[in-house]
Amino acid sequence: MNLVVTGTLAFDTIETPFAKKEDVLGGSATHFAHAAGPFGTVGLVGVVGTDFPDEHLKSFRERGIDCAGVEVAEGKSFRWSGRYEADWNTRHTLDTQLNVFADFDPKVPANYRDVPYVFLANAEPAVQSKALDQMKRPKLVVADTMNLWIDIKKDDLLGLLRRIDGLVMNDEEARMLTGENNLIRSARRVLEMGPSFVIVKKGEHGAYLVGKDVMFSLPAYPVEDVVDPTGAGDSFAGGFMGYIASVQNTQSQTLRRAMVYGTVTASFCVQGFGVDALADRGRADIEERFNELVSFVSL
Amino acid sequence: MNLVVTGTLAFDTIETPFAKKEDVLGGSATHFAHAAGPFGTVGLVGVVGTDFPDEHLKSFRERGIDCAGVEVAEGKSFRWSGRYEADWNTRHTLDTQLNVFADFDPKVPANYRDVPYVFLANAEPAVQSKALDQMKRPKLVVADTMNLWIDIKKDDLLGLLRRIDGLVMNDEEARMLTGENNLIRSARRVLEMGPSFVIVKKGEHGAYLVGKDVMFSLPAYPVEDVVDPTGAGDSFAGGFMGYIASVQNTQSQTLRRAMVYGTVTASFCVQGFGVDALADRGRADIEERFNELVSFVSL
Repeated sequence: MNLVVTGTLAFDTIETPFAKKEDVLGGSATHFAHAAGPFGTVGLVGVVGTDFPDEHLKSFRERGIDCAGVEVAEGKSFRWSGRYEADWNTRHTLDTQLNVFADFDPKVPANYRDVPYVFLANAEPAVQSKALDQMKRPKLVVADTMNLWIDIKKDDLLGLLRRIDGLVMNDEEARMLTGENNLIRSARRVLEMGPSFVIVKKGEHGAYLVGKDVMFSLPAYPVEDVVDPTGAGDSFAGGFMGYIASVQNTQSQTLRRAMVYGTVTASFCVQGFGVDALADRGRADIEERFNELVSFVSL
Repeated sequence: MNLVVTGTLAFDTIETPFAKKEDVLGGSATHFAHAAGPFGTVGLVGVVGTDFPDEHLKSFRERGIDCAGVEVAEGKSFRWSGRYEADWNTRHTLDTQLNVFADFDPKVPANYRDVPYVFLANAEPAVQSKALDQMKRPKLVVADTMNLWIDIKKDDLLGLLRRIDGLVMNDEEARMLTGENNLIRSARRVLEMGPSFVIVKKGEHGAYLVGKDVMFSLPAYPVEDVVDPTGAGDSFAGGFMGYIASVQNTQSQTLRRAMVYGTVTASFCVQGFGVDALADRGRADIEERFNELVSFVSL
């Protein structure tokens, strides 16, 4: 096992202009792990309530996701509910119930601690740091964050940034964290805060990778029938980190290719609710779309 | 001479969050010709009023722009005035005075009529058709249009589409013309209307090229200090067509490279008011940024 993720396992209730689904399997770690799974085993650190069906964890295991780090706590699992506008870019959070995640104290299993590649999915920065504290000299640590922590836990977040190699964020968060409107300048500011690279996601407009010795831009894969964008960012991170962990290399050419893999796994994610569309795809499907996307951007 | 453009020569009054400039040299044909100039001579078909200074036409000629097709009519030149919001994406037109352009009846000089590459910048579709009527079997005809003509002259526009090879439009216009929200599906619909390729421009998010045998996506060049976006679309078209005319080839690989050249000339355009920033750049500057953009998108 080369890859560990810590984050949420959740039930999502999602309204789109075309459908409404209740209690869909979701959460940042869930999406990440399903995207990373086809590249090799991924270890999951998270917490669920007693309402989380065993079948879900069983299906995780069948996809090469190690659940030794998933704690079952007394109470209910994390629940989120949201609604998307017809343009898919506007999302309204209708309800968030942290439940057992409110007191999440990540416990990294002993056999995960030497794993070289680590992804800290969005959580309170202090919780992300607690998980990182338990890892022994990982080769690459990448984290996600959100506007809420930039707003109310900025010092903790800045502390975390000094300890990680890569940060994944969306354009709005990049502007909010740095106070810089131009995305490239904003990304460069983030580098001054600690990470050696930052990925700025722009949804349907693709993503930038900006690092000390790399600058790369990639459009999104043009999905014609979006079903549900929930989890696209975490699925991006899963494909990105899954590929890196599988090749055990972090040179800039590898990071560029990892961006393509992340874009591909995100594109599968949005073609179904929850992890439905991702769970149906294996490495061969990913590779086919990888080649298609490469030809889409090649001169 | 391999390239002819018909369109407007104008005076623009532009307000940005940082500056206001009055009577800046502008117009679709002006921007196009300044972007195409470094690739070879471009012939200009348009009309100006008696208020249009000779020095402007003189400076056009010094940049390899042939002005034999520029008619001087009694009256005032076309004038446009607009204001940009801080995000640069929102533009308010404050005033449009067609003046001599209201009765524009394009007269293509005899020595332009055999020219193989033609760009019909945004104008009433019937006027674009009149210019095209005067060309003898061009190899490649590309046109631009705008929401106004989709709204009030749709039949004329559909007639024009059956006669051209390529259409350049922005994302909003593509959706408006086809009633299709998804950009790729929208582009495919346009192909059914006649053109063999369509370029969908997404401003700071880059552009798509969709054709019968080509699909290509390119991000914008990341300009850190935008001064004035006016004319970026026409400057894109100028670099795109200028390169194609210079290599006299329209295979899909050429179209892909032409997209990069168009993106580069558009990026120079937005770094100054009017054609100020473009006029300072020669082919060597374009080539340097071409290489930079290629490395920015290469795996």
